[in-house]
Amino acid sequence: MSFIIRPGEKKDAQSILDLIIELAVFEKEPDAVEITIDDLLQDGFSNHPKFKTFVAEETNGNIIGMVLFYERYSTWKGKAIHLEDLMVTETKRGIGAGKELYTSVMKYAQENGFKRVAWEVLDWNTNAIDFYKKTNATVYDEWRVCQMNEANLKQFSSENI
Amino acid sequence: MSFIIRPGEKKDAQSILDLIIELAVFEKEPDAVEITIDDLLQDGFSNHPKFKTFVAEETNGNIIGMVLFYERYSTWKGKAIHLEDLMVTETKRGIGAGKELYTSVMKYAQENGFKRVAWEVLDWNTNAIDFYKKTNATVYDEWRVCQMNEANLKQFSSENI
Repeated sequence: MSFIIRPGEKKDAQSILDLIIELAVFEKEPDAVEITIDDLLQDGFSNHPKFKTFVAEETNGNIIGMVLFYERYSTWKGKAIHLEDLMVTETKRGIGAGKELYTSVMKYAQENGFKRVAWEVLDWNTNAIDFYKKTNATVYDEWRVCQMNEANLKQFSSENI
Repeated sequence: MSFIIRPGEKKDAQSILDLIIELAVFEKEPDAVEITIDDLLQDGFSNHPKFKTFVAEETNGNIIGMVLFYERYSTWKGKAIHLEDLMVTETKRGIGAGKELYTSVMKYAQENGFKRVAWEVLDWNTNAIDFYKKTNATVYDEWRVCQMNEANLKQFSSENI
């Protein structure tokens, strides 16, 4: 392989942010990313990190992919991992970096006693869905993701004192 | 109101577990709950709790509902809340406890600077979906929930050294 997988470090924050933005563009939400490099550094690479990362690094030092994840809690199974983002930059697809990043999270979860790994995928991303199914993950048709965004959260809270 | 909303405490753990199981039965997964009362006490009511709860308590001390939530991280918005379970026992529906529990999480998120509250709902649970939409939450059709369970996690990890 022409790349290695290693834990992400502070010095990778800009590359990680670039990949977050590239993924948002791929997901047709180019303006959705509001976090900044300072947010990423503070939230992920300070004393109490809110997430962990692995990065795929080429031998020349280029970061070509990353996976970002954190702990959740299942009231059915116990402690779980949520895989928030998995991304390989467009020009570096097909060399296996995505599978290695995915595998690194699964192994992390298994070695650290987590009972489940969960994530979300867009229904039109059939390449990803096919890959997940091949690894024996389950893609659920009947669950819907719900979100209250910041503006509506503020509005709802002010109307329900 | 004949009930109050307050943070869940250690003494509520059995009531919370009963409601988790009642919710799993409602969701047609009666055998899915593997966590025990000891897991709940350890994971939620020790020094580093993995989740928080609010409970709805009647004036006679009965716990009739609960909501369980924890922190997540959105690479688009920043720190977020995941609402894992919201449940009111069947005989106590219709008196507003569900809405008060839901509101308590939204207010907690808003007051503590969270940028989003996220959760999942079954597509046939139209009563819940209608309620969420009325509060200006978004129910996404295009996202699919994926999970790797414990057995497949073990299998996959052993096949991908």
